[in-house]
Amino acid sequence: MLDDKIEAEKPGVSRRSLIAKGLALGGAAALGGATTASAAGNPANQPPNVPEWSKVLGDGVAVRPYGHPSKYESNVIRRDVEWLTASRESSVSFTPLHELDGIITPNGLCFERHHGGIAEVDPNDYRLIIHGLVDKPLIFTLDDLKRFPRVNRAYFAECAANSGMEWRGAQLNGCQFTHGMIHNVMYTGVPLKILLEEAGLKPNAKWLLLEGADAAAMTRSLPLAKALDDCLVAYRMNGEMLRPENGYPARVVVPGWEANMWVKWLRRIEVGDEPWQHREETSKYTDLLENGKARRFTYVMDAKSVITSPSPQAPLKHGKGFTVISGIAWSGRGKIARVDVTLDGGRNWRSARLDGPVWDKSMTRFYVEFDWDGSELFLQSRAIDETGYVQPTKDELRKVRGVNSIYHNNGIQTWYVAPSGEVENVEIS
Amino acid sequence: MLDDKIEAEKPGVSRRSLIAKGLALGGAAALGGATTASAAGNPANQPPNVPEWSKVLGDGVAVRPYGHPSKYESNVIRRDVEWLTASRESSVSFTPLHELDGIITPNGLCFERHHGGIAEVDPNDYRLIIHGLVDKPLIFTLDDLKRFPRVNRAYFAECAANSGMEWRGAQLNGCQFTHGMIHNVMYTGVPLKILLEEAGLKPNAKWLLLEGADAAAMTRSLPLAKALDDCLVAYRMNGEMLRPENGYPARVVVPGWEANMWVKWLRRIEVGDEPWQHREETSKYTDLLENGKARRFTYVMDAKSVITSPSPQAPLKHGKGFTVISGIAWSGRGKIARVDVTLDGGRNWRSARLDGPVWDKSMTRFYVEFDWDGSELFLQSRAIDETGYVQPTKDELRKVRGVNSIYHNNGIQTWYVAPSGEVENVEIS
Repeated sequence: MLDDKIEAEKPGVSRRSLIAKGLALGGAAALGGATTASAAGNPANQPPNVPEWSKVLGDGVAVRPYGHPSKYESNVIRRDVEWLTASRESSVSFTPLHELDGIITPNGLCFERHHGGIAEVDPNDYRLIIHGLVDKPLIFTLDDLKRFPRVNRAYFAECAANSGMEWRGAQLNGCQFTHGMIHNVMYTGVPLKILLEEAGLKPNAKWLLLEGADAAAMTRSLPLAKALDDCLVAYRMNGEMLRPENGYPARVVVPGWEANMWVKWLRRIEVGDEPWQHREETSKYTDLLENGKARRFTYVMDAKSVITSPSPQAPLKHGKGFTVISGIAWSGRGKIARVDVTLDGGRNWRSARLDGPVWDKSMTRFYVEFDWDGSELFLQSRAIDETGYVQPTKDELRKVRGVNSIYHNNGIQTWYVAPSGEVENVEIS
Repeated sequence: MLDDKIEAEKPGVSRRSLIAKGLALGGAAALGGATTASAAGNPANQPPNVPEWSKVLGDGVAVRPYGHPSKYESNVIRRDVEWLTASRESSVSFTPLHELDGIITPNGLCFERHHGGIAEVDPNDYRLIIHGLVDKPLIFTLDDLKRFPRVNRAYFAECAANSGMEWRGAQLNGCQFTHGMIHNVMYTGVPLKILLEEAGLKPNAKWLLLEGADAAAMTRSLPLAKALDDCLVAYRMNGEMLRPENGYPARVVVPGWEANMWVKWLRRIEVGDEPWQHREETSKYTDLLENGKARRFTYVMDAKSVITSPSPQAPLKHGKGFTVISGIAWSGRGKIARVDVTLDGGRNWRSARLDGPVWDKSMTRFYVEFDWDGSELFLQSRAIDETGYVQPTKDELRKVRGVNSIYHNNGIQTWYVAPSGEVENVEIS
């Protein structure tokens, strides 16, 4: 798929050309000149005047013992889509990807997917049971888990149904809704391997049953080999304890695999010799093909990317001139090796600049800086991971998988940017 | 300072010995057996019973569009010390380091240090002025800043006065209070170099004046060489926009240097040819020596470390047995190369296990796992950075600097652990 359309261009924009182009910025006005109309605001608070907030004492320390964002950022929230599900208890809310940057998702904005609502677990009564094909069945308290060696790792968690509504065509007009069932945080937890070895595995142990303490008793089968490889029983995210929405006080982290397997409010691990064929791996979270058969145990989230800004909820409102395209890429098979971006619907591609940590099975941030001439754009991004896997087009996916599934859609996303700067979710062929 | 007391021990604990020792865990009870008394809780919610929260639907999605921690974590907050300052507007609140792990500080828990309260800046009226020895004075709106190439970098920000109350002896009984004027987040921002080059530097440009838009108009002089090296004008922390407490909508990031220079609510940068000798670099943020002279322009925060758990607010409540010591280390001169830990007040040292990212001028997490026999401990940690600098003892520091300063105390901290598990801030000689 990597064809000759890729320009022989170095990633990013050279410092020299950037600065020359930067002078075209509408808003960087000489002192005394006019500033951009888009941020007109209140001239009384702008140079040469001293703003109001410089004249009065503000709130003191610890007025907010646990802080929250500025009141001017009240639009940066998780959102659900009312018609998408029958109840809020078995539903989804989406991460506002278009309002974020970098690779860390703030805990308060991590997407939610619950099957029986948020279990409000009392940490004093929290217990994790490990039993089945083990030498010694064990029950751990939360304090017990904290006494085992712990590690810190950042991983993306993506719902298998992320972008699922787009199988039959462009539908949801916002990056938050098409791609917002993903978050990326730094976990602290115990390698699952250590807990299993503590219990002692019988020779015929091959699979784990993971069960949550929520009202849905969310249950999935996990191959033992994956559990022993890189899975965690995590109790912290981004430094603090897990949030209730994310499995407080402990959940499983299954790096690179569909987030439904990352069982929250983890209550029980049973060790067995075959998968349990549970509801969530037979009726749900399988991919129904055109011939009526279903792909099953499709755990790995393949390489994917999306431009988060501009996007329908984040239009290019400043008009023509120098601008930054920002996006994210990830792969369940390892590190992101490269991201290509096209401005013209695939005729010409350039390599994006990857910035910040490029980690195994973690979100990677990419940028493309360019001087927009104000004409219409068809933006796409295409992720390539370290195994050489290339993110496919939606049509390529449909050819193989049909359009019956709502899972595992990692097709290339197209945003149409109008000369007005408005952005729309479209498909081009 | 690295003497022969260091054991020839490999970092961490080998997997084999850990698991053998793990069996001594009091709480990992065989099924049907008793669990640890410390987490007695309500038996009705514990195995073999199904807990209450598994029987009822919990809250649905987007009930909290911007999430917050579990109600059971309400003790994880920033705290101030009432007698420390005359007002809350010019004061400090401390990061609860003893309740955190990993290297990311959640935005809501980042320590605060304000000189005129929290400026509540309207982003529409936000302007950054760059003037002085430049070819073309400029005014940037927030949208303008977002149109420049951006980078993502994690750095620690430590107040010069962190541990300042400890110069004359052990005083504040909690890691939050002795060391909590530090946080570590991932910033997104524009390299300051790009903005300065946009304005064009005159040949005699040597220093910058940084001015905040708060009621204190916080003002510091910054050497141009540092600005061109690695400083940022940041507008995001951990993915989302800066919090008001941390300079919303834009602040300076001065990697490795005292946080007072990281001017928040950044309003003005003047380019000059010498430092301005402002209040905060003459009367304050200088180190008064025994001979009456003061060390000035002492920007770099030298290598430092502290054990965050156990510590006075996080006692070893589980009694004897396998446990984990967790701590943080950082250096304003580069990466952390090694952290040594002693359990016996310096007679024997072992190398800690560094876990997670070890980045330039960023917090590094370290662990020591050991089997506590229940006898008293004198815990210390000692950071060594990649330049070979070794964190000194408090007495070594006092010999050179006296005890008049409240700044730049990076001495080794001692925690006394009683057989009861209670922990106290002490000094030993």
